[in-house]
Parts: sequence; structure tokens; C-alpha cells
Amino acid sequence: MARERAKRPHRFSSRQARPELPVFSPSCPFCPGNEAMTPSETLSYTDEGSGRWQVRAFANRFPALTPGGSTVRREESGFFVDMDGTGIHEVIVETPAHNQALALQEDAGVKDVLSAYHERYNAVSRIPFVRLVIIFKNQGASAGTSLEHPHSQLVATPVVPKHIRTQCEVAIRHYDSTGRCIYADMRDHELRAGTRVVMESEEFAVFHPFASHHPFETWIVPKTHQACFGNASAEDLERLAPVLRTTLLKLYRGLNNPDFNYVIDTAPVGEENKDYYLWHLRIIPRLTEAAGFEIGSGININTALPEETARFMRELKV
Amino acid sequence: MARERAKRPHRFSSRQARPELPVFSPSCPFCPGNEAMTPSETLSYTDEGSGRWQVRAFANRFPALTPGGSTVRREESGFFVDMDGTGIHEVIVETPAHNQALALQEDAGVKDVLSAYHERYNAVSRIPFVRLVIIFKNQGASAGTSLEHPHSQLVATPVVPKHIRTQCEVAIRHYDSTGRCIYADMRDHELRAGTRVVMESEEFAVFHPFASHHPFETWIVPKTHQACFGNASAEDLERLAPVLRTTLLKLYRGLNNPDFNYVIDTAPVGEENKDYYLWHLRIIPRLTEAAGFEIGSGININTALPEETARFMRELKV
Repeated sequence: MARERAKRPHRFSSRQARPELPVFSPSCPFCPGNEAMTPSETLSYTDEGSGRWQVRAFANRFPALTPGGSTVRREESGFFVDMDGTGIHEVIVETPAHNQALALQEDAGVKDVLSAYHERYNAVSRIPFVRLVIIFKNQGASAGTSLEHPHSQLVATPVVPKHIRTQCEVAIRHYDSTGRCIYADMRDHELRAGTRVVMESEEFAVFHPFASHHPFETWIVPKTHQACFGNASAEDLERLAPVLRTTLLKLYRGLNNPDFNYVIDTAPVGEENKDYYLWHLRIIPRLTEAAGFEIGSGININTALPEETARFMRELKV
Repeated sequence: MARERAKRPHRFSSRQARPELPVFSPSCPFCPGNEAMTPSETLSYTDEGSGRWQVRAFANRFPALTPGGSTVRREESGFFVDMDGTGIHEVIVETPAHNQALALQEDAGVKDVLSAYHERYNAVSRIPFVRLVIIFKNQGASAGTSLEHPHSQLVATPVVPKHIRTQCEVAIRHYDSTGRCIYADMRDHELRAGTRVVMESEEFAVFHPFASHHPFETWIVPKTHQACFGNASAEDLERLAPVLRTTLLKLYRGLNNPDFNYVIDTAPVGEENKDYYLWHLRIIPRLTEAAGFEIGSGININTALPEETARFMRELKV
């Protein structure tokens, strides 16, 4: 936490307004009428009244990982190890409207997006080689998006990445020594302290974590135990929708529609019923750049105290 | 490695030319004549002919860490732990000329910069609370710089960050099971394979590592064993200067003066004489953005094969 550095010339709040987007963009592969520009659908939710799709999923045309390869590791000259880039990479288009930010959707629209995540999670996690399914959203160019049309992505990996394995190991050690889930403990300590809480519903806590890595980093954590997002119930998703929408709307209004990423952290495949993990959603607004210090040390400099940013968001009426 | 993704709209080579900078900027705190705008010097190298400084170091006015705090850890409500942001944060101005890119300096100028790093490393690493000294350079806005005038930074931390501790643990395990340094092994395998080598001098190897995290990520690794950058000799620095300059110049010419970070990875304080570590310099051009997948999985998607990028750089005459 280094508030001194926030005095530097570039300050989060000063970003320029985005250009207005049209409701339809003729060249956008995610706009209605351009369905032929995308690979065949893996999911489509249709509005009964209009008969038009509201949410669609399909394979990413520029995938990070592709199915069909081997998961056998190969040694190169007895030192390096490689394997095929085997996996699944899907796009989930959140709305037919080119300019409809998720934060500005109705609860029912957000619920449909969450249901699509859930349905594709459960379909993909059953593929035998899949060890982890990551669902995420990149909003804006600095968050790594090349397409404006609101969409999320799903990537299934054939390995448990080291980053996730380390998280699990820490959580297991905590569980073994306390009998409790470290994420539930964190949530409960945040709710008790109160100073970093943005909002709370009967089923979810929203807070800027203690010593968070990024300014305005926001976690949405369920109050009921569930290691795996795929095991969340329809009711859980129904209750998450207004919480996610309100959280995103506060960021949208309070930070002038910032670029952001969010990701659903969930237990690896095969660990769905463990007590040590608790799925949650993590939002990272892209307000600062990781630089040489972060690259060298692995320590993040956060130029805003979560106690102050959470109060700002808690008091912001949307 | 996902070359398919490199077909996406934003492609590394297409970045716009930067505006030309003036040799002197009246409002720049790092330009000659504005020395009063910076805290008092910790180092200054003066050109004997002109009597003017060539390289200067001083405390960062917007520090991430500051001296004088405690290093005692405190518990908050029996769960979270915090400590003061104790440390050292210095700026090293590389040249009096506002527009003098390090890549375009003479070898002697680069050598002075390296000597300044080395001198400040050895001064700061002797402060009792210091456990790690990170020297890095942020070049360009997307690499996290707020000031254009060529400069580097040094941060000394009162802890060994988890990221570095993990590196050391992996290196120690490799050393214990093989009797060899993992970084030297990596260097030797890269030199033997040859396909990812950019250049090689008698004392240094320059390569794009196997399965590197970022497009055009470049490592400069010494051929002689030294865990700690602070133990490099004056001759080592003399020999590193043309290698670093040429490597940066190849990036400058080949990628149209990209934003980049570099960092000197070195053993933690107290581990200077260990056989398991080998200091090295790691350059990360900022050509792609980490997005939701990277944040969620900890896996980096590299859209360019190091075998191809290294060949491109190897064949580029500068």
C-alpha cells in the first residue's frame, strides 16, 4: 500500500470518456445477423417474446487452447518439458446489443449470463482431460479485449496451473490446522471488520480485500459453502445477479466506466466437494500498470487503501 | 504458446511511432538545471571533461517504500497481518539528455548506468533491514513510467517476497538433486539448442527462453557463476555494457522502440555466496496485455514462438 505514489501524474479518476458505441455494428462478429462469422453454437438462450437470442456461446476463433491434442508431457533435451496446447476456449456473448454494458443490464439479463457460465462450466468440466475451468471477462482495451461487443470467455485447461495449485495448498494447510475454509474465514473477518465492505446481501459479501493487490480490486464471496461454481444452484445465480450488477454499476459510475477484468475462482476439477475452497468472483479494474518492481518482486504496489476505496463505493448510490 | 491468437486485430508490430522528445525539457525534474526538484543525491558520476553529471541517483519522491518504519509484523483481528512499508526506493537517472534512449547510448554510457546500479546495490544491501534489492527499468507509459527522461529504479524490501522465495526453493531443490545451478543449466541448454539464442559473447548469453511468458521476452545470463549482482566485477559490467546495449538496440529497431521493463534478478541478501542462484537480467517488452485468463490461471499466453522471435532478433543487424 503506497498512497504516496498516487500523487504521481497519472491518477485513476482522470480517464477520458469512451466514445459512444452503436447498438449494432455491421462488422462485429458478435452482433445479430452476423452469426455465420462465429463457429457453431454451444449454447443459445432465446427470448420467448421476440424469438431472438439473448446470450450465445461458441468456440473462440483465436483460441489459446484447442481440443484434440495430447496431454502427454514431452522432454526436450532432458531439461525442458512441453505438451500440446490442449483445451477448450469459448466465447459467451452477453447480449445482442453491441453497446449494452453488463453493468447496465437488468438483473434478468445478468442472471442469463451467469446461467450461461454455469451451463458451459458443467458441460466443459465433464470432458475427461479437463482439470480446471476458468470463466472470465475482459472489458476494454487495457484489459486485453480486442472486441467491444460485451462478451465473456471460458478456458478449460488440461493441467492445474501452478498458481491454482499453490492457492489450494495454502487453503488445505489452513483447513488442516483450523478445520475451516480460508476463504470463508477471510469473508467473515472482512464482514466483522466492516471497513472494507462494499455491500452485503443475505447470500453474498462484496468487499475490497485487506492488502489487496490492485486499487478497487473487488471480491464477491458467497455466504454458503460451495467449493465449485458449477455446484452453485439456480437460486444462487438468481441472487448473485443483482449483487454483481450493482457492484459493476458502482464501478461504472464511480470510476467512469473503467476497463476491468473479472474471473471466477473455483476449485479444480475433482476437488468440487472439498471443504477447503470456496468459489468467488474477483474484479480487477485496470487503473494502474504492473511495472518492473512487480515483475521483479511479485509484490503489487496498490496506490489506494481498500478501506478508502470500499467506503467510496459503499457510499455511492446507484 | 498460442500463435493462433496473434491473428487477432491488435498485432505487436503495428504500434505508432513515438513523438520526438527534446534534448532538454524545462519542467522535467531529471533534466540538468532542475536538480533542486529532486531529493539529495546518493550517487553522481561526473564527466571529467565537461564537469557535468552523466548519471545521478536520489530517493524517489513518490516512494513505494520508505525508511524509518518498523519491520515488526502486526496481526489485525487474528487473521490478517501487516507491517510498515519500510524500505528504500531510489531513482537512477541514466543520462542528462531528456531524449537519450539507453539503447542509443555509447557502450561507455551504458557501462556507467550499470556501475551506478552496482554501486547503489552494494550500498543499499548493507542496510540491516534489507532482504532483497530489485533494480529495474520501466520504459514507456504502458510499462508503468510516468516520466519520459531515461531512468531506472532501485527498491529494497525488508522481506524476501514469496515470488522470490519460491524461485529460490525451486533452484535449491534442483541444486540438491543435481549439484548444479538451474539457471546455468537453463543457459547451457539454450546455448546447446541454439534456436532461441539471440547473441552470445565470451561472458554472456542472450536468449528468448523456452516457453517464455511474453513475446520477445529476453534473458541476459552471465557465463560465470555469481549468485548476486552486487558481486559482479567491474570487468563483468564492462563486458555486459555492449551486450545490453546491442540487445536493447535490436528491440528498439526490430519492434519500433517498444515500451518495456527490465529487471535484474539476483539472490536475496544473505544468499550472495550460494551456488544455486545465478543473477541475470530479464527484459519484457510490453506487447500484449495480461487479461482475465492470466489473472485467473497464472498461465501466460504467449502469442509468438521464442524460436521465431529469437531468429528474427539474431538476424537483425544493428
